Amino acid sequence: MLITRRDGAGARRVPDELIVEEPMEIRLDDVVVTTTMRTPGHDFELAAGFCFTEGLLEGAPVTAVRYCGSGSAVGTEFNVVTVETGGVASVPTARLGPTTSSCGLCGTASLDDLRRRLDPLPPDVRGTIPLDVLATVPEGAREAQGLFARTGAVHAAVAFTADGEPTLIREDIGRHNAVDKVIGRLLLDGRLPAWQDGSPPGLFISGRASFELVQKAWAAGFTAVVAVSAPSALAVSTARAAGLTLAGFVRGDKVNIYAPERL
Amino acid sequence: MLITRRDGAGARRVPDELIVEEPMEIRLDDVVVTTTMRTPGHDFELAAGFCFTEGLLEGAPVTAVRYCGSGSAVGTEFNVVTVETGGVASVPTARLGPTTSSCGLCGTASLDDLRRRLDPLPPDVRGTIPLDVLATVPEGAREAQGLFARTGAVHAAVAFTADGEPTLIREDIGRHNAVDKVIGRLLLDGRLPAWQDGSPPGLFISGRASFELVQKAWAAGFTAVVAVSAPSALAVSTARAAGLTLAGFVRGDKVNIYAPERL
Repeated sequence: MLITRRDGAGARRVPDELIVEEPMEIRLDDVVVTTTMRTPGHDFELAAGFCFTEGLLEGAPVTAVRYCGSGSAVGTEFNVVTVETGGVASVPTARLGPTTSSCGLCGTASLDDLRRRLDPLPPDVRGTIPLDVLATVPEGAREAQGLFARTGAVHAAVAFTADGEPTLIREDIGRHNAVDKVIGRLLLDGRLPAWQDGSPPGLFISGRASFELVQKAWAAGFTAVVAVSAPSALAVSTARAAGLTLAGFVRGDKVNIYAPERL
Repeated sequence: MLITRRDGAGARRVPDELIVEEPMEIRLDDVVVTTTMRTPGHDFELAAGFCFTEGLLEGAPVTAVRYCGSGSAVGTEFNVVTVETGGVASVPTARLGPTTSSCGLCGTASLDDLRRRLDPLPPDVRGTIPLDVLATVPEGAREAQGLFARTGAVHAAVAFTADGEPTLIREDIGRHNAVDKVIGRLLLDGRLPAWQDGSPPGLFISGRASFELVQKAWAAGFTAVVAVSAPSALAVSTARAAGLTLAGFVRGDKVNIYAPERL
């Protein structure tokens, strides 16, 4: 796309590469569960990851993921994805608002809801990634980020090993989508929970750590979350309840550890 | 909250101020329309702004905005806000997923939906803020940002005058919420559309410019949007359809102008 760039030397027309943003409808066994604005690509991972992290699968195995167009609108058939469990997962019920609407009316209630749905991490997998390693993750992740370098408009989620090596990176204009894409890939490969042997136990996210992102990481069994900037208070409470390590504001050799409460 | 800070000199416990994130339920004439994770404060503005920018008011006047607790749960009564129009606005219908779910299944359809709902800016108010002024906005906005300096975890939306002066700033852990709070304040003060005399015609946002944020700015009648970083391709198409100026990547005296297509 041609845009106008102005600086001290005046204005000129220059080509610019912009990140693509398109709506995608996610269905579970053909029932619509959400529509998200996302960057196209890795759509099956996004759909599977979303259903998993939001608790919609309830342990049901994913038997297939496919595009399903209405057949009536040319060019839009790749914006509807169905996750199939053969009817094993419960039929999702219509509800207003975003996914968080089920969480109750205060942060404590939201966290209590999660506690009912998710078990804390097993004690023997907690803290298995050394803090020194966590501090090195953002630099490695940055090198692995492709889209960002070109457009400056996407967020990244990166799964990393106990040695801090990035092994799986997904980028999207929506931070939640990038996380769902990483988790969806691990789910489809049978590698969840992420703390099991051979899976990457750490999750890097390229921005702030909100409640919803920590909730997703907990659902997937990551033992550590590293965020480039700060978490919210509720995100910290959630990480502490899960037993996962939450690091933020990693700059050079400096790192803030928000959870667990004591090392 | 006490956290652990590690650097080359070792680890120590330090106090840290974290941004608060709590769910808030928004109702229109007592019908639930959404729940959003937000930073408490300016809740009435958020509720009114959300209903307005999402097209739920359909021109109906807001007669009152109030907290409405269930009465049964102590401490949560400030997380439910009702916007009242005395029944003049249509009753919102239940639908799955976030607000964008009504937009159709591709970006073009989303934009077409907007075109049906919103008129382009009147030609005589377009381009009224000089490009030189737009380049100065981020610095002024940064000085006005209070929470960010303390927590590093919030986004800001700032309404600014044709001279680039910030006149109204709202911060929130959710970028959309910050924008809705600014627009809600202008709505409650009878100052929309923002292009009218005496209203601030510009909107600054502290991150990327997505489709949804440009949609909200269009609904409110801002003539210019300045983003710290890049817009999506769909955000640019939307700004061009609206006739508003979209500037991004403002650094020093450099600025990218994404819309209008030609100056």
